[in-house]
Amino acid sequence: MALLFLSTPARAPVWRQILSDAGETMIDGEGAVTDPALVTEIACWTPPEDLGRYPNLRVVISVGAGVDHLPPMPPGVALSRTLAPGIEAMVRDWVVMATLMLHRDMPVYLDQARSRLWRTHPVRAASARRVGILGMGRIGGLVAGSLTALGFDVAGLSRSGAGADMDSVPVFGMDQRDAFLARSDLLVCLLPLTGETEGILDASLFAALPKGAGLIHAGRGKHLNMPDLQAALTSGQLSAAVLDVTEPEPLPPGHWLWHDPRVIITPHIAAQTDAAEGARHALAVIRAMRQGLPVPGLVNQDKGY
Amino acid sequence: MALLFLSTPARAPVWRQILSDAGETMIDGEGAVTDPALVTEIACWTPPEDLGRYPNLRVVISVGAGVDHLPPMPPGVALSRTLAPGIEAMVRDWVVMATLMLHRDMPVYLDQARSRLWRTHPVRAASARRVGILGMGRIGGLVAGSLTALGFDVAGLSRSGAGADMDSVPVFGMDQRDAFLARSDLLVCLLPLTGETEGILDASLFAALPKGAGLIHAGRGKHLNMPDLQAALTSGQLSAAVLDVTEPEPLPPGHWLWHDPRVIITPHIAAQTDAAEGARHALAVIRAMRQGLPVPGLVNQDKGY
Repeated sequence: MALLFLSTPARAPVWRQILSDAGETMIDGEGAVTDPALVTEIACWTPPEDLGRYPNLRVVISVGAGVDHLPPMPPGVALSRTLAPGIEAMVRDWVVMATLMLHRDMPVYLDQARSRLWRTHPVRAASARRVGILGMGRIGGLVAGSLTALGFDVAGLSRSGAGADMDSVPVFGMDQRDAFLARSDLLVCLLPLTGETEGILDASLFAALPKGAGLIHAGRGKHLNMPDLQAALTSGQLSAAVLDVTEPEPLPPGHWLWHDPRVIITPHIAAQTDAAEGARHALAVIRAMRQGLPVPGLVNQDKGY
Repeated sequence: MALLFLSTPARAPVWRQILSDAGETMIDGEGAVTDPALVTEIACWTPPEDLGRYPNLRVVISVGAGVDHLPPMPPGVALSRTLAPGIEAMVRDWVVMATLMLHRDMPVYLDQARSRLWRTHPVRAASARRVGILGMGRIGGLVAGSLTALGFDVAGLSRSGAGADMDSVPVFGMDQRDAFLARSDLLVCLLPLTGETEGILDASLFAALPKGAGLIHAGRGKHLNMPDLQAALTSGQLSAAVLDVTEPEPLPPGHWLWHDPRVIITPHIAAQTDAAEGARHALAVIRAMRQGLPVPGLVNQDKGY
């Protein structure tokens, strides 16, 4: 029984140490596999082309929080996404930063700075700014708590209905989608990417927001319809956007997003998995599988998250 | 008895309404003064040239949180600075935003975006970032609480010693200044401007910070020695700065600060006094003076804050 590690070289020694301290075997890279039958777990971002090569494979562990980039698993192979408190806090920090940057007109001030212009604009209290969080999972709940503590008027939309039971943060169900969007001056997307959510950030969704709303996107590039974003910025339906994800990534140098002063881009850095946290998650998955206990981060492969 | 109002026209009707509802008289502008002996209070940012013109003047109320721009008061005239929860929360929001922007390398990412470069840098957990707050008054305490809630490792420096008694936020005294600076990866300046604090952000202070520290400045332009800031950025002793205040203001178009990609400038917008909050503060001052009660926002004119 061995875990096949297919991730970045910098993480390998950290993983090897944590797994070997726990009495587990790690194989670093497909080139080091002598007997494919030994491989019972694979930890990867990009999986091997032929998962069928490993007859005793039981679980694939995504080293990130997302699994949308992975192909369907062969029958009987479980899929786990890394749950790491570090990832969740990092995304929270990025979203709080991006929300404050839109709340405090940073796209305007950064653009003014480019033309050396010192001009003030009215400051609004956080309590007068309604934030809507699309996706009320673990990270959505964390973001809602932090933004509420800063005084923002926060609500969430949960596809699974009630979902997060949060004091003081109303959580709307899908049947109240339009009411939720109508009160979202700043919309935060934290959805997982599935067949259902692909392209969800489109003209019809933007049209349901208050005029001049802002978009904060920490989901996936494929959630966002780029021509619709450009049209909404041009018409003023959206005033600004902060994007950590694009389609494609890396964003090509000539792309209009780089050139639009109303758009702030970060290169998919809202979170990075800490190597030790990732390895500890993998170890927890291995042990749970072996003992028949609930597997941490287990993905419902029908739902896709 | 009347309050002489010397502030922006947009605020005047709000003040007039609130004062008249409370049975107080407001005179809008020096041109409207028929009998200077009637003026018992002046509310202003920029005071009249000749305060001696008003024989019955009892108090000058600064419509902002700062009073460093005001001349010495004539004998017997009190000075009050506007205490408004709205101002404090706005500064807090700006500081939290600026701190997150330095924590998450926004100066680097904004500069990369200018050259259409998609390149990631390692993300650090907030818990691994030590923030030092210079000035632990009301706003400093608010900032310390918010940054601690986000997981930052926060400490404060208080010139009055113990000062803010905060759970979980150590407050250093002036005799521990170097120990405080040595643990400040990100330094937040919230000091009032006095003879003692003018120029405090200089080469010797920067040298006491960890190499590569970041500066967040929401105090006053005159706290900051500009040539020393430029030298510290050039040597790498400071990696970046976010400034809401400069000297002079507005910052002239040709100033090096506008051109340095490691510096983010906002045009003194960390807070704006809400007209109604300001008027309610003035009303509270008038009533406290009349009843001989403690005056809200009373400035110790020896200390200067």
